[in-house]
Amino acid sequence: MTNLLTMRLLAVGQRSETVRRANLSAIVRELHDRGPLSRSELVTRTGLTRSAIRGLIGELVAAGLVAEERSLSSGTPGRPSPVVRLASTNAVVLALEISVDSLAAAVVGLGGDVLDLVRVDRPRSHLSLERTVQDLLDVLERLAPPWREDDRLIGIGVGVAGIVRRSDGFVALAPNLGWRDVALGRQLGEALRLNVPIAIANEADLGALAEHRRGAAVGSDNVLYVAAEVGIGGGLIVDGRPLTGAAGYGGELGHLPVNRDGLACGCGAIGCWETEAGEAALLRRAGHPTDGGRAELDAVLREAASGAPQAVRAVLETGRWLGYGLAGLVNVLNPGLIVLGGLFGRIHPFVAEVLAEELEARALPASRDLVRIVPATLGSDAPLIGASELAFEPLLADPAGWLRRPTSQPQRASA
Amino acid sequence: MTNLLTMRLLAVGQRSETVRRANLSAIVRELHDRGPLSRSELVTRTGLTRSAIRGLIGELVAAGLVAEERSLSSGTPGRPSPVVRLASTNAVVLALEISVDSLAAAVVGLGGDVLDLVRVDRPRSHLSLERTVQDLLDVLERLAPPWREDDRLIGIGVGVAGIVRRSDGFVALAPNLGWRDVALGRQLGEALRLNVPIAIANEADLGALAEHRRGAAVGSDNVLYVAAEVGIGGGLIVDGRPLTGAAGYGGELGHLPVNRDGLACGCGAIGCWETEAGEAALLRRAGHPTDGGRAELDAVLREAASGAPQAVRAVLETGRWLGYGLAGLVNVLNPGLIVLGGLFGRIHPFVAEVLAEELEARALPASRDLVRIVPATLGSDAPLIGASELAFEPLLADPAGWLRRPTSQPQRASA
Repeated sequence: MTNLLTMRLLAVGQRSETVRRANLSAIVRELHDRGPLSRSELVTRTGLTRSAIRGLIGELVAAGLVAEERSLSSGTPGRPSPVVRLASTNAVVLALEISVDSLAAAVVGLGGDVLDLVRVDRPRSHLSLERTVQDLLDVLERLAPPWREDDRLIGIGVGVAGIVRRSDGFVALAPNLGWRDVALGRQLGEALRLNVPIAIANEADLGALAEHRRGAAVGSDNVLYVAAEVGIGGGLIVDGRPLTGAAGYGGELGHLPVNRDGLACGCGAIGCWETEAGEAALLRRAGHPTDGGRAELDAVLREAASGAPQAVRAVLETGRWLGYGLAGLVNVLNPGLIVLGGLFGRIHPFVAEVLAEELEARALPASRDLVRIVPATLGSDAPLIGASELAFEPLLADPAGWLRRPTSQPQRASA
Repeated sequence: MTNLLTMRLLAVGQRSETVRRANLSAIVRELHDRGPLSRSELVTRTGLTRSAIRGLIGELVAAGLVAEERSLSSGTPGRPSPVVRLASTNAVVLALEISVDSLAAAVVGLGGDVLDLVRVDRPRSHLSLERTVQDLLDVLERLAPPWREDDRLIGIGVGVAGIVRRSDGFVALAPNLGWRDVALGRQLGEALRLNVPIAIANEADLGALAEHRRGAAVGSDNVLYVAAEVGIGGGLIVDGRPLTGAAGYGGELGHLPVNRDGLACGCGAIGCWETEAGEAALLRRAGHPTDGGRAELDAVLREAASGAPQAVRAVLETGRWLGYGLAGLVNVLNPGLIVLGGLFGRIHPFVAEVLAEELEARALPASRDLVRIVPATLGSDAPLIGASELAFEPLLADPAGWLRRPTSQPQRASA
């Protein structure tokens, strides 16, 4: 559809400006996704001509978005091609995360450099939206200050452990935070008073985005990301693009019903996947208090590693239920890759075999034979990294809008 | 991504040809999706200029793909705008369907006119691939012959009740046909000997495509289509595009595990959704033979309509299991619309209330409040119509490739 839309714009007389914008986007996105590239590599990757690359990079250099430097000789004959890199500190985003047991903030530069990151643990008690926003402001104060300078801040991305409407950051439900129908987007905007867009999404959706851009799922177009933190969150990449659903609520894998005679879930339903495969289920089976948080989880995993029978059985049974749900999702979605995050990434070494058995028993062979299951690689900061990617998206889609100096091109088409 | 790709093509010197092709595609797709339109409406819908529309339509008329006619005055002042319609008999596709209890073939003209359709019932016995292909050739013989004339046949689309690899029409598994690992694409190509592309897909995926293009889901971008025939098939539309998954196996909703202590499924697993919500489950609960096919189903639905207690209970219990699975899929996918096909469309009036109750109990309120559940509108020919849409896709994406007369534009970029 984008294709047609672009073509229509072209046809009504904004041809060269639209092409220029799309080409700038292609260059900045390549550099953002892959890191510094030589001009020759950019020619190869974008399909643009050498002279077009030169001109567009000139614009980006003038605007301070990229820098060029002579490369060292690569050993091949001929003049070395200059290396182009993003000026990561000149365009930065704030990434924020509201997790059940911590708050975090990071300053991330264009290209994905994490310039500063602060994470503050907090108790798993239900705190009000107002209190949480205030606590987030306190976390922000602890970040190194340069992101406030000049106009370098281009956007804010926020991950939250809840079900979020993408259009305005309204949180419909965050059972593990104790929130229902809270206007996080509006309140955060009023509290931060920074004149840049705020984009808010579910933290597992952002974990999926992060693993797809920078982690275990780079290069995979159909990805199922599933992470257990307190609940089970998930994010789907379909044909290379995040699945959001009709309003941004997609990917609530934890609330797939798996046991009609199961336990009550925080969402109000019975026998959701997270009641059988989530953190509390593991703690319960291992005979640990289910409200013990990370310390108890660490203890169970230590016991399992040392072969304590109840802990081993608890981990395996939890792995079976993980596999039970995964099998259904494999049949529905035919992913090429499953990325296990949070607790699931940690138990992966213990449960790889029972996962394979569950998929063998329940997933269709055609889909099962295609899918690989791997642990996430970005660790617990994945949602924060995903939040930064969300905040960069408008710049990546149209860097021309961020160029500060007027160019020789007419700017009528700006929007 | 398409956007970038197009832009890259533009940048390397094929600007006007690429724009022309995209504009031809926009016009033909509008006419195909919406039916005859005046030139003025085409101007509005495509964003192209009046003169661009005139030129491109001239090309399409010369090639015999569209016809123009004076419209009757619409009552508004000014010269009436000519009406543009597709010349549907000049570009046709063959649509074929291999269903469990019937074979069907249709000739469909550009724009979606079904020019001829033959459906032949067959027993639900497992017939070999070779026998099925031979029977399909016999069905084809009964179609009105004009589709064989000239070069008007542009493609073949095939729907099959199995799990199909999109790239080559290899059927990995079709439990209700008794097939495993059969090269349907290759065998059909060799048997038909028609020099046009053959595209093969799962029949429920095609049902979803058809309902999205021409049925209950027109205008909805996030759609869950679920149809019970012998098994349960499904198709997903995500952000306006069919979800195929990594290899085309996506949408196998019938094999979502719902009952760990359930019955054996034809796929080899235990307690798949179709063992609880499918046709056989309804027949079993109603006390009818489960291998009775449509006649027994009709009998159960008649009994339920007349209030016979066992039939009513059987329909309601089947509806509960339908709702149980739908609730999970609503949480995972956040669809805006659920379209019920086949048996589910027929029982919808009986079970609308229990479906709402199950969603109330198990689906997250945010997603549940957004979703509407409606019966399919295209009836049992939906997969056949979807097969025709699949076969038209290459022409819709690039009609220039089908223009028979050379134009004034250079054709170097043809591929």
